[in-house]
Parts: sequence; structure tokens; C-alpha cells
Amino acid sequence: MRKVGIIGLGHVGATVAFTLFTHGIADELVLIDKNPKKAQAEFNDLSDTLARNDFHVKLKAQDFSDLRDLDVLITAFGNIKASVESGDRFAEFGFNSDAAKEVGQQIKDSGFHGIIINVANPCDAVTTILQKVTGLPQNHVFGTGTFLDTARMQRAVGDHLHQDPRNVSGFVLGEHGNSQFVAWSTVSVNNKPATSLLDEATRAQLMQATKDNAFVVAAGKGYTSYAIATCAVRLAQAVFADAKLFAPVSVFVPSVGTYVGYPAIIGADGVEEVIPLELTAAEDAEFRKSAQIIKEHVDQLF
Amino acid sequence: MRKVGIIGLGHVGATVAFTLFTHGIADELVLIDKNPKKAQAEFNDLSDTLARNDFHVKLKAQDFSDLRDLDVLITAFGNIKASVESGDRFAEFGFNSDAAKEVGQQIKDSGFHGIIINVANPCDAVTTILQKVTGLPQNHVFGTGTFLDTARMQRAVGDHLHQDPRNVSGFVLGEHGNSQFVAWSTVSVNNKPATSLLDEATRAQLMQATKDNAFVVAAGKGYTSYAIATCAVRLAQAVFADAKLFAPVSVFVPSVGTYVGYPAIIGADGVEEVIPLELTAAEDAEFRKSAQIIKEHVDQLF
Amino acid sequence: MRKVGIIGLGHVGATVAFTLFTHGIADELVLIDKNPKKAQAEFNDLSDTLARNDFHVKLKAQDFSDLRDLDVLITAFGNIKASVESGDRFAEFGFNSDAAKEVGQQIKDSGFHGIIINVANPCDAVTTILQKVTGLPQNHVFGTGTFLDTARMQRAVGDHLHQDPRNVSGFVLGEHGNSQFVAWSTVSVNNKPATSLLDEATRAQLMQATKDNAFVVAAGKGYTSYAIATCAVRLAQAVFADAKLFAPVSVFVPSVGTYVGYPAIIGADGVEEVIPLELTAAEDAEFRKSAQIIKEHVDQLF
Amino acid sequence: MRKVGIIGLGHVGATVAFTLFTHGIADELVLIDKNPKKAQAEFNDLSDTLARNDFHVKLKAQDFSDLRDLDVLITAFGNIKASVESGDRFAEFGFNSDAAKEVGQQIKDSGFHGIIINVANPCDAVTTILQKVTGLPQNHVFGTGTFLDTARMQRAVGDHLHQDPRNVSGFVLGEHGNSQFVAWSTVSVNNKPATSLLDEATRAQLMQATKDNAFVVAAGKGYTSYAIATCAVRLAQAVFADAKLFAPVSVFVPSVGTYVGYPAIIGADGVEEVIPLELTAAEDAEFRKSAQIIKEHVDQLF
Repeated sequence: MRKVGIIGLGHVGATVAFTLFTHGIADELVLIDKNPKKAQAEFNDLSDTLARNDFHVKLKAQDFSDLRDLDVLITAFGNIKASVESGDRFAEFGFNSDAAKEVGQQIKDSGFHGIIINVANPCDAVTTILQKVTGLPQNHVFGTGTFLDTARMQRAVGDHLHQDPRNVSGFVLGEHGNSQFVAWSTVSVNNKPATSLLDEATRAQLMQATKDNAFVVAAGKGYTSYAIATCAVRLAQAVFADAKLFAPVSVFVPSVGTYVGYPAIIGADGVEEVIPLELTAAEDAEFRKSAQIIKEHVDQLF
Repeated sequence: MRKVGIIGLGHVGATVAFTLFTHGIADELVLIDKNPKKAQAEFNDLSDTLARNDFHVKLKAQDFSDLRDLDVLITAFGNIKASVESGDRFAEFGFNSDAAKEVGQQIKDSGFHGIIINVANPCDAVTTILQKVTGLPQNHVFGTGTFLDTARMQRAVGDHLHQDPRNVSGFVLGEHGNSQFVAWSTVSVNNKPATSLLDEATRAQLMQATKDNAFVVAAGKGYTSYAIATCAVRLAQAVFADAKLFAPVSVFVPSVGTYVGYPAIIGADGVEEVIPLELTAAEDAEFRKSAQIIKEHVDQLF
Repeated sequence: MRKVGIIGLGHVGATVAFTLFTHGIADELVLIDKNPKKAQAEFNDLSDTLARNDFHVKLKAQDFSDLRDLDVLITAFGNIKASVESGDRFAEFGFNSDAAKEVGQQIKDSGFHGIIINVANPCDAVTTILQKVTGLPQNHVFGTGTFLDTARMQRAVGDHLHQDPRNVSGFVLGEHGNSQFVAWSTVSVNNKPATSLLDEATRAQLMQATKDNAFVVAAGKGYTSYAIATCAVRLAQAVFADAKLFAPVSVFVPSVGTYVGYPAIIGADGVEEVIPLELTAAEDAEFRKSAQIIKEHVDQLF
Repeated sequence: MRKVGIIGLGHVGATVAFTLFTHGIADELVLIDKNPKKAQAEFNDLSDTLARNDFHVKLKAQDFSDLRDLDVLITAFGNIKASVESGDRFAEFGFNSDAAKEVGQQIKDSGFHGIIINVANPCDAVTTILQKVTGLPQNHVFGTGTFLDTARMQRAVGDHLHQDPRNVSGFVLGEHGNSQFVAWSTVSVNNKPATSLLDEATRAQLMQATKDNAFVVAAGKGYTSYAIATCAVRLAQAVFADAKLFAPVSVFVPSVGTYVGYPAIIGADGVEEVIPLELTAAEDAEFRKSAQIIKEHVDQLF
């Protein structure tokens, strides 16, 4: 049986639950939120869905001891208001770093020993805290990181060239935040290098669009949910199916000494391999700078 | 190609869009909301999902002229606050009946000639208004009605008897609102009549739980979304697949002269048949009373 | 992770593998056939599908020791030629009972301790042998039994009344073979008793159509595959999702002392409950007669 | 509604039908085979599946006039024995070119005006014949071509490097037959050029494995079915969803004057664009040679 827990049932966590539920990806879902009424409401709304769902899913709520036997735990707690208002995900850091410590301890106390996929922001920093506090192996704790930003880049480039986003490959690297960047040397469209298809000004504009879209979405609906939740679900699927999925996520990269968005292979054992890229010197410098920003924030805490 | 429009991108409409999108049910989605920023935000959030989705979906936003060639239109506009606060879906009636007239006219003007599935509350009344204003055939406009309440009854009975809700059959009939009732003579569990498994007091309690759950969910999360959205999606699928789905929905029942929750066959031609039930005399009276409540509200308007 | 083994890669076993594979139901598939070239061919054909599949699936072939950690094992071995030619599934009994003993011993030796879902014919007898030889708990070994015949009845009745088969409920009971029968007192269509919709002659004709269809299909394509494979997959899904699926399958029914097609609840613990039906006296007699036929065949062996 | 026809219900055609059916991709399926008993058997087997399927699908059989309103037609007729025995798909050419002319005329006479996806071998030649005889626009008739061989290459390379096949990109080009070749300059694994990961001898061996696998599979099971059927389904999905799928298929490439395996964009309008690759001089020569082989066979006929 595939067992998944979700801690934090805001719009992202709830959408993750709903997606796992309606696609038959999870056989058992444990729902946890600091607001018990919210958890109960999502539990009830999903329970009412059962009679119309293609799949049966066992639902549980609010009991940390249920985490013990889970395969995958998705952490999506936190308060995004500060991020949305300030335009900087580190604005959530004060609140969420405390939450991360508390939740990490609760996870540890539950005896959970599976894989954590963190969505909570600032993603790289919170992932770091969760790994440290739970004491789980570094490869068993990772974050969605720039997996979402990369999807946004694929969409921005695809839209510009009238192509499906899935015809665009390549990576956004670094912080899931303002210091992220598109590693254009890795990007190609229908097997052609992006650098041959897009001039520098266009690339700059598409990179800005990639970064801005979270805030466009948040401005219109108050939060972002569908793209980020789908990214988290994809990663959970990769763990269950031991898919060896090649994806940029928030992983611990030894060369920069921090969790940061970088390509890795995701399988049943979590992060099974970090895949070194051959970046240009400028890209490499940007990557190191972005990693440094994360590291500085995190180092304050430990 | 399967083309679906959604008018009203609150939590329900947006969840319908996301579900159609991630399950590959719709090939084209037209998103419309009275708040253009909200529509743009949902459009962008779904667009950012494309690179991580199993299916490609063509997205359009905010242009009523795009409705012309749609197969199915799901209407989920309205303001649920009044319902949630008062515990009566007719509390939304003033606001939503005006919205229904306006939206109905916009649908008519677009040249839309497909099937409308209405979710907006009070469901039976709004469905009536939409049919009258658009002038579409009565069988091409129907509402989710008690399809959701029936799911809730299946869940309440299933929970009580430790059974999967899908092992419970039977119907909630009448208004998608306070005068609805469980037609216990139609309910069975694993092929056994519910009346032989549940005493009268238990049945009364389970019927109350069925009615109350919308408000329990709304109290915890501020709205209901997953179960109702899944019901709407199921009905859209039945139309696309000409599934001859036997389901209680808000249909025009000639014997009571109004739209009201009652079993029908849903297929490519919308409501293809209303299926008469053999109710007990008491159930028949309750059904007529509930239909009368809807009728009185609607008759004020025309 | 959901791990499934399939023993016997004829058309049914291979279709089960393909379905589990393309729907993302199994995360790991172990393929076993007495013909190693056949197993390798299916392994290779599925491996070549991986690059075009929505899901990653880990494939293994031909090693009985891989059965140890499986959750579910589907047995679909045997030679159907005798059945197809004679019109009686017991014509396979000589060959398949030997195969069942051999396979049962191999399963036992592997240390397998999950749930066996048997498809091999004669289904009730082979299921009995597998349970006895493996020594697994009776509720952990069951057969597809009349789950398929019931689907055929639903289709025959549905076609006759121009209804979707899913709008038809009720059961075919007894042997998955010639002594099976439709328990018409359990059958209803859109909530109406079949006995009120279909006269006796029509019922007799639809029951014959239900029985004959396997041979119509086999005459045209040499075997049956899609419906039976889909039934097996549904049951495997019910185990993984602990779905409490109410379905007629080949279960051990104490009152008749044999495995025979009868409704039960299927969940993570296999057959979790046998659900007694209130049959008419005539149906009850037919059921006992059918069970006796199975019992006589099986008793020869032990 | 999504309507698909399948002509030729051998193992490939039947598997295409089953996949479209169980995944809810087609709302209506028209099944045609030169052997009416075979068509009826598949029709019946799928009909018996309906009661256990998540989706309703409307099934029709054997009436060419039903082709008129279809969106997509998949042609999978022919006799593969000659190919399997000789190891050369052109061994089927005599038989299948006659079949292609006959079927093409029947399609034309039906008034069909949708998209044809041809699977029948020799794929490039039969696709050519179908386009010429039906008179449909060149971009509305294409073949699976090297979409399958590319999947096999992805698998062979992935296996060698212990990677998921989906982490391998690049193309097999040319004839879907013996003169095909891996265009190694287009192949990369986790964003690294294959030429840097695999030495020449390994590449030669993996290319041979790619070519040979069809015959390994056919030797073990008598035919190939799952991978090729899945490729055809993917292409049909791309048409329905207007997915702008970038894939190597059998398309008319003006520079070589024939249908041949080459990358293109597949959408609602069929082949929407042929995407020129920058091949090495050696690859370019191999491509032209392979195209020439197809051209010579086809030119004999017209």
C-alpha cells in the first residue's frame, strides 16, 4: 500500500491530498494541520468524494502517530501572506523556520522513517531545517525547489515559441526564490539549443516572466496551488514507482554545502544521485551566489 | 475534441477546471470569472502545471465568444458566504438569481448550444433560471442537485456500517437544500435494504449528518469544494462518454412542474430520461413538499 | 510500493500485466511463465513501452524468489484449448489441477505470504488447490469466479434494456462454469427489480447469453482476455486500496463447504467478509447444486 | 466526443482498442477487421468489460460507413508472419500493399476526413499508399514509424546506464525497418550527450539491440503488441489534445521525397510541422540512404 502524509492543509497541501486521492496514487492519506477544524473539513470533504471517486482511499486525520508507517510525507505548512505581500519568500522565514523546527520534532517523535518532500517556503531553508531536526538521511529529505520554477520556464519559453512546455527541456537552478536563474546553456526546445532560438533580451524577459508568475498568480487568487501541488505529486509518484526521475529539486549539493535547486535522480531511496551539470562560468557563479544566499539564512539558525 | 467551459472560478469552479485538466478529460478549457484577475491567475496556475501534466490541455480565458463551440458548460458562479453563514442555500438566492439571469443572457448571446451542468446555488432554482434565460432545451440544462447529497448519504451510511460508500446505493431526493430527504425505501447496502439494517432513529441521525456535512466542511475551510467539484466532473464525463449514467440530479420533473433532485439517465443528449421511482406515500409527500419550496422561490422571478 | 506477481503469461496474464503497467497500479511487476521465452518476450515488450508510459514500473521476470515480498499474486496459468473446444471449463481440469499443485508448491517455497487472486480455470477448483497447497489463510486466496460472469450478465441485461451495464446490479452465483446461474432476485436495473422488467423467457435467454458469451468470444479470437483481465485488475486494486469492494468472487462459503462464486467484501485482508444473500428457495437449491459440482471435482484430489 | 476507428484487430489493433477503452481516451470506438468473427469477438470481449471499466465507451463494429465522422483512424491491418520469419518488415510488403490499397479505397469511400495514424508494416510504405489512395492531405496521414524504435533505443540506452528510458532523449531516424539508425548526435542522457557517455562499440551494440528487440519479442510471443500499441495511442492522444507533441514519426519529408521516420510536431491538425535536425554528415547520408530504400519500394507501385 502507498501511504502518504500531508502536514499543512492550506491550498497547496489540500490540493496535493485531492490529487493523490482522485488519481488513485495514494492508498492511505494522513491529513494534519495546526487547525484541527481545517483538517476535519478537508477529511470530510474528501470523504464525501469517495462515493464518486474511481478509487478507494483510506483517510486519517490529525494523529502524528499515524506518520510512523508512512512511505512519503509532504510538508506544506506555513503562512504565505508575507511572501505574497513582500515578493520575497524569505519574508516567511521567521514564521516558517519556527514551524519547521516544531513540525520536524513532531515528525521525529512519531518514528517516521520514510521520505520527506518539502514544499514549505522558503523551500531550501525549510528543507534544511527538516532534515537536521528529524535526523533523517540527507537523501531522504528533499524539497520541490526549482522543479516548479523549471515548469514555469518551460511554459514561458513554450508560449513564446508556440510550443508545448513539455517540448522544452533544461533547468532553473538555485534558490526557489529571488536569486534563482535559468541555466540557459541547459535549455533546448525540440532538440535545438535555446540560445540559438532566443536572443539575450528575450531570454532575460522570459527569465523575469518565470520568476514573476508566482506573484501574478498570487495577486489574482491570493496564493498559488495547482502547479506547485502537481510538482509535489510528481515527486511522490517518482518515489513510489522508483522512477529514477531526473528533475531539478532542492537537494543537498556538497560542492556548495547547502540544499539548493539542482538536478537529481529521484527514486525509491529519495535522492539517489545528484547529477553534475556542465554550466558556463557565469552560470556557475550565479549558482554559487544563490546557494550562498540560502546558506547564510540557514546558518543563522544552527 | 472535448471542450468544456467553466463560468465562475471560485473554489468549486477552479477545482472542476483542475480535475478536468489533470485527468485528461477536457482537451480544451474556457475559464470565465467576473473577476478578470482571478481568471488570469487560474489560467496561469494551470498553464504552469502543463509541463508536469500527463495531458496537454488548451486553455482559454474570459472570452464569452469562446463558448459557442463548447460541448459542456459548467456554471459555478455565486457567493456562498450567505449560505454558509445562514445555513440555508436560499440565502444566496437574491444575489445568485441576478447573476444567473446575467450569465444566462451572456451564454445565450454567445451562441452556446451544448449542455449546461449547473452547480451554482440554490441549485434547483439557478438551474431553472439558466434554462429559461438561455432557451436551451430542458434536457440540455441540469444541475448537480442531490447527486452530492446522495454521495454524502452514501458516506454517512457507509461509515456507520463500516462499508465503502460505493457499496451503498439509493437516493437523496428533492431540493439541494434544507428540504431534501433520504428516500430510505431506495437505499440498500450490499444488496440489503437499509430499512432492515438501520432503525428509524439511526436513519434520522444519518439523514441529519448528510444534510449537516456541507456546513461542517464550510465551517472548517470556509467553503466546500472537492466533493461537489467531483460530482460535476462525473456528470461532464457522462455527457462526453454518452454513459447513460443513472444519477439523481436536478432535472425538470413534469409531475411536480419544477427542477428538483430526482434520478435520471445522463448521456450525450443531457438528461435522456427521468426514471420514476416507486416511493412510499410518505416519501412521495416529502418529495412534493420539497419541490413546492423550489417552485415557490422560482415562481417569484418569472 | 505496490508489488504484483503474475504467474502464467497467456493472453489473460499478459493483459493483466499490461493493464497494471499502463494504469500505474503496480510499482513492481514480477512476470513468470513456464515458457521462459514467452516471459522474456513480455518483459521486453513492456520494457519497450516504458519510454511512452505515464508511469515507471519496475519489471522482473522468471525468478520465484521474487515472489516473497509481493503484496498480490495473480495466477493465470493453464491451457484453455480444452475448455474452448469442449465448451466446459472442467475440460481443463486434468491439466490445470496438476499445474495448480506444482505452482502452489512453488509459491509456498518462495515464502510468499500475500494475497492470491486466481484466474486459472476451472476457477473454483484451482483456487481450492492453490489455497490447500500454499497453506495460506482461506481469506488470502480467492478467485475471479463469477465476477466476470456477473459483468457479462450486466452487459446482457443492459443491452436488452438499452442501459449501461453499470446501471444493472445483482449477481451470477455458483461455479465459474456451466452450472452457474443468474440469481434474478438480486438483479435490479436503475433501482427496479429485474423480475418486473423482464419476463421469464427473456430472463432465460439473457442467462444463456451470459453463459455463452465466453465461447462466442473464444470462437472469434481463440481465447477471452480483456474482460477477465479487467476483473482481475479490479480485485487487485481493491486489495491495494483496502476498498471493501462488494463483489461476487470465488470464495470459501462454509455453508456449502467449498470455494464457489458468492458475494464478498474484498479489502487489504483479502476476503474480509462473505455476505449472505436472501435467495429464493429455487435459487438456493441451484446454488447448492452448483457448489456440489465443484466440491465433487475437488474432492477427487485430496 | 472523441471518436476513433481501428482497422485491423490483430494483437496490435486489439491492444490499441483495449487501451483507448480502459483509459477513457475514446468515447466511441469503431472496430473493423477482415474477419468478421474476430471483430465480433473483440466487440464482445470489450462489451463484457464495460461493467468493470471506469469509463463508458460506445462500441461499433464492422461498418465502414461509421468511419465518416471519426476524428482519428488507426490502421493496423496486415500479416506479420512474413516479417517475423524473415526478419525484414518488407517481407510483408506484397500482401500489405494490396491490403493498403483496398483499405485506403474503403476509407475514401466512407467519406472519412479525419487523421489516419498507420501502424501497418512496412510502415513508411503503407502510410504512403494510404495517403495516396485516400487523397487526404499529407499532414493528415502519418505512421508510427520510428516512434517505437526510438522508445526501444531509449530503453536500451537507459538499461545500459541504469536510467529510466524517459531520461534518454534523441531519435532513431529513417525506415521503420532494417535501414533505420540511431542519430547519436541527437541523443542525450540526463542532459549529457550520449557520445560522451558511450563509446563507439557500445553505441553500435545498443543500436543493434534497438533493431533486434522487435524480433526477440516476436520470437517469444509470436508478435509484438504492447509497445507499438502504446505508441499509436500516444499519437492519437496528441491529436485529440492538440498536444504539439514533438516525436519521430513516419512523415512526408520533402527533402527526400518520401514518408520516413523523422521528428515532427503532432497536434489537432495531424503533422503540424516537420522539425529539421542538424545531423552530422554521416547521419545525414544514412538518413538519405534509408529514405531511398523506402522510396524505391513505393515507387514500384505508382
